[in-house]
Amino acid sequence: MLIANLSEPGCDGFDVHGMERSRITRGNDAMSDEIAKTPQPPYYAVIFSSLRTEGDNGYGATADRMEELAAQQPGFLGIESARSGFGITVGYFRSLEDIAAWKRNVEHAEAQRRGRADWYQAYRVRIAKVERDYGFERE
Amino acid sequence: MLIANLSEPGCDGFDVHGMERSRITRGNDAMSDEIAKTPQPPYYAVIFSSLRTEGDNGYGATADRMEELAAQQPGFLGIESARSGFGITVGYFRSLEDIAAWKRNVEHAEAQRRGRADWYQAYRVRIAKVERDYGFERE
Repeated sequence: MLIANLSEPGCDGFDVHGMERSRITRGNDAMSDEIAKTPQPPYYAVIFSSLRTEGDNGYGATADRMEELAAQQPGFLGIESARSGFGITVGYFRSLEDIAAWKRNVEHAEAQRRGRADWYQAYRVRIAKVERDYGFERE
Repeated sequence: MLIANLSEPGCDGFDVHGMERSRITRGNDAMSDEIAKTPQPPYYAVIFSSLRTEGDNGYGATADRMEELAAQQPGFLGIESARSGFGITVGYFRSLEDIAAWKRNVEHAEAQRRGRADWYQAYRVRIAKVERDYGFERE
């Protein structure tokens, strides 16, 4: 599934590093496994670090649904996830207001409640302003 | 191995959320698998998102060594890592100057060179100011 990036040139004054940064690709039903094609900073990151409880208990399906739903939110710029026992998901958004609106989303709020009730031993959410970025891509 | 947190109360004016946030625990030779006990924001995060090449090629030993070395840097506050094909490591530091010094560390610079030569298909580094955080811990 190809999700159009909301920060194309000319949209809210955002400047992207050419076409290669203007879209993200992700699977329909798997954790994202690509580096998010975020625009030029500044933008915001929600760093979600977590330790799971034992068993799935419906977690996998909801996690997939939350990635899908996050990608539909205003100001969404991309998402990255990795888990090896310990899990880290980073969602990128245009502004603090976009992050606050996503946190209040009704379906997301219910997932947060289930997370505390069933899925997580512990988690920490850090809201951070990305000030600078750089990278490397093999030829 | 228990690593003393550098931001204990009274050190450079940092305020921590009580003793439970004042230390981090990590294995000697494994990726960190705990939520970093970071102090009250603001502080900085280095979000390192990466896709590996095939094979180990000495990556594992160097990755462990870099976590150990990072923890010895001035201003180090904690580190979190997860990998499931896609990898995310987040290092937390007191200031941008601390991050710049860590990037210039000679042994780390050599690891960065090897990363581009051998270990990574692609990576992205995002430097972000953590403005707010909150969390949950099961009783």
